[in-house]
Amino acid sequence: MTSEIAETDETSLGEEIVRRITALGAISATPGDLTRIFLTPEHRAAADLLLSWMAEAGMDAHLDAIGNVCGRYEGERPGLPCLMLGSHYDTVRDAGKWDGPLGLITAISCVADLHKRGRRLPFAVEVTGFADEEGVRFASTLLGSRAVAGTFVESVLGVRDSAGISMREALVTFGLDPDHIGAAARAPSELLAYVELHIEQGPVLEAHDLPVGVVTAISGATRLAASLTGMAGHAGTVPMLLRRDALAGAAECITTIEELCRTDHGGLVGTVGYIHAMPGATNVIPGQVSFTIDLRAATDTHRNKAVTDIVRHIEAIARHRKLTLQIDVTHENRSVPCAPWLRSQVAEAIAAEGYPVFELPSGAGHDGMAMIDIADVGMVFVRCRGGISHHPDEHVEVADADAGARVLLRVIENFRPRSGATGERS
Amino acid sequence: MTSEIAETDETSLGEEIVRRITALGAISATPGDLTRIFLTPEHRAAADLLLSWMAEAGMDAHLDAIGNVCGRYEGERPGLPCLMLGSHYDTVRDAGKWDGPLGLITAISCVADLHKRGRRLPFAVEVTGFADEEGVRFASTLLGSRAVAGTFVESVLGVRDSAGISMREALVTFGLDPDHIGAAARAPSELLAYVELHIEQGPVLEAHDLPVGVVTAISGATRLAASLTGMAGHAGTVPMLLRRDALAGAAECITTIEELCRTDHGGLVGTVGYIHAMPGATNVIPGQVSFTIDLRAATDTHRNKAVTDIVRHIEAIARHRKLTLQIDVTHENRSVPCAPWLRSQVAEAIAAEGYPVFELPSGAGHDGMAMIDIADVGMVFVRCRGGISHHPDEHVEVADADAGARVLLRVIENFRPRSGATGERS
Repeated sequence: MTSEIAETDETSLGEEIVRRITALGAISATPGDLTRIFLTPEHRAAADLLLSWMAEAGMDAHLDAIGNVCGRYEGERPGLPCLMLGSHYDTVRDAGKWDGPLGLITAISCVADLHKRGRRLPFAVEVTGFADEEGVRFASTLLGSRAVAGTFVESVLGVRDSAGISMREALVTFGLDPDHIGAAARAPSELLAYVELHIEQGPVLEAHDLPVGVVTAISGATRLAASLTGMAGHAGTVPMLLRRDALAGAAECITTIEELCRTDHGGLVGTVGYIHAMPGATNVIPGQVSFTIDLRAATDTHRNKAVTDIVRHIEAIARHRKLTLQIDVTHENRSVPCAPWLRSQVAEAIAAEGYPVFELPSGAGHDGMAMIDIADVGMVFVRCRGGISHHPDEHVEVADADAGARVLLRVIENFRPRSGATGERS
Repeated sequence: MTSEIAETDETSLGEEIVRRITALGAISATPGDLTRIFLTPEHRAAADLLLSWMAEAGMDAHLDAIGNVCGRYEGERPGLPCLMLGSHYDTVRDAGKWDGPLGLITAISCVADLHKRGRRLPFAVEVTGFADEEGVRFASTLLGSRAVAGTFVESVLGVRDSAGISMREALVTFGLDPDHIGAAARAPSELLAYVELHIEQGPVLEAHDLPVGVVTAISGATRLAASLTGMAGHAGTVPMLLRRDALAGAAECITTIEELCRTDHGGLVGTVGYIHAMPGATNVIPGQVSFTIDLRAATDTHRNKAVTDIVRHIEAIARHRKLTLQIDVTHENRSVPCAPWLRSQVAEAIAAEGYPVFELPSGAGHDGMAMIDIADVGMVFVRCRGGISHHPDEHVEVADADAGARVLLRVIENFRPRSGATGERS
């Protein structure tokens, strides 16, 4: 990893991006750290700044019905279908500055570069800053991209945040009309593709000493909630062989899940992130333990097989230990493959910039998960330091931001719509 | 297990005991369940009831300086050294009725039986109802028996309960003089032995289908607090081989502790009762995990060896997984062996009542842990249903209460002081 910037004409792109990342990152609910939640005053202030940058870059810019910032740079003639670029501008609490904004600001800067050169392409370029990807406020993610994809579920308008404010009320306060969310939806015929640049949020590019990578798919995820019930008892009086210790059972499940994932050759990842042992006293054998399991793989087939295998192992552990098992799927996201033709064009751009082409799945979710319903999806990953994300220590080197921008600019300038495409997807 | 009572003369003893257990169990801070904490009004009411039963049983009865109820039944002539019987009359919160009161009430009923028959022995019999064994209020256990053993630490008088009331203030409210706790102390020369009957609080007698057992020792306990620190990360983006998952490490520790204890042939028990994984979110790899370890064995040598073994294993797991380990001993209780000569006399009494003689350690703590400083200790265990204790479901069958009483009565009537004993311990 180097912080030196290659001396090319595009150097200023990386510097400009980092300057804007810093400016946008200063717009927060709380001074000193970064928290920018959907439909808050700071969210509105960020939108206004983004709209001004879009306008500067030669785009027609507006807020859509859900609060997405939308910019359009016309092609060689008005009204052409577009290549849509984008990412989100909301954050988690106590966030890093790069998750979301890097992709959005890079896209704006690329368009600004085209505009500066007076370059028009045989298609329009649109940049969308999605209003809500993280789902912090209303516990429902991808609200911005779902509105664009036409899959926004109207019933979530009634959901209330922790302060009791409904999404409907928050939209009105923001200056939007909750009865017209549908107006944000775009037709598949308007889009040639959706391409997103994003920080990796993982350590793989860093481990391979690469600034950028081609994303193969956004991994699907299955979350399970498991509960094991045995028999609580006095830590001193119940001999080992008479115990039905729910935590010892959960520990065996956790080591088994880890082993199954470690020995998988297809990139399966499994995590037990939450555990609660009851009653939770030093001198009492735990009678009940709850824990969660998060499983991700690049294809649904792979992940579903892993879910089946792991559930079967956990059932066997519970049976063997005379524990009662309750296990339920609490959440499921399909895998979203990146379109091979877009992967090829991203790979070409990376190679043209002189970097080895490296492919990796995205274990984190992105707006492409919603956009897949109206467009083929491509993604470029940019290295982030230590793989750290959702944390103030999230960091991207200027040189890597610049490398990402040069790659994205090449993707735009060399973009060929899928052969035979008219904007309609087959 | 049978609920029928053998048709002997002592039948009424078990029934009387259960009646008194029920009466005492009704004296609680809260109606409907049982909570009777040290130096509360209900604790005082319980003491008064116990004192009245002691007086009825022909004993001189009084409250001592810490709130223990003390009854003395003189022997063939006044002033002889005593066989002391006892247990505690405080409870945990939401307790069972039997833990403590069974031993105390059985002892009173045995003396009442001697008194009814006009039987005097060549030694005095004293019954002590210890005021605080559980340590719920002031987080310091065995306060009653420590006062009797002369090992009460005056500095705890300044400790405050959760309401901010100091032990000193609580003693005054109860009607005692905190400046004279020392007056509760007894000289070793006054005691020939200390014998306690108690519910097992474990499932071993039930598993062997026996109403009573001989306790070999009160197991010592070591408690450790362990903390493993790895690296938090996104559940989707960090490949398995790049993880430093603190919970996966803790799970390996838990299964290792269980395995080491299960394969121990000396009755070692090990429990991880508390675990906390941070940050504790479904989709975040745990970066830090804290857990406790409780280890008990019948001898200090055995337990100390187990502590060393387990710490060495945990250190190896942490090293292998690149986790930082912090592990500390937070609590340590020595083992208290029951005196072989008292074990023999308890065994004789059990055999004379027609039951197989079965020996087992006590994994739970008892007042004998303090009394060992002034007297040899013997203990009788009585079966409790399902091994359940410290819970409203704690239960002893009438027939088992009766069997315990008959055994204790035989121990008293056939008691021979340790050969050569003058009341002084060698």
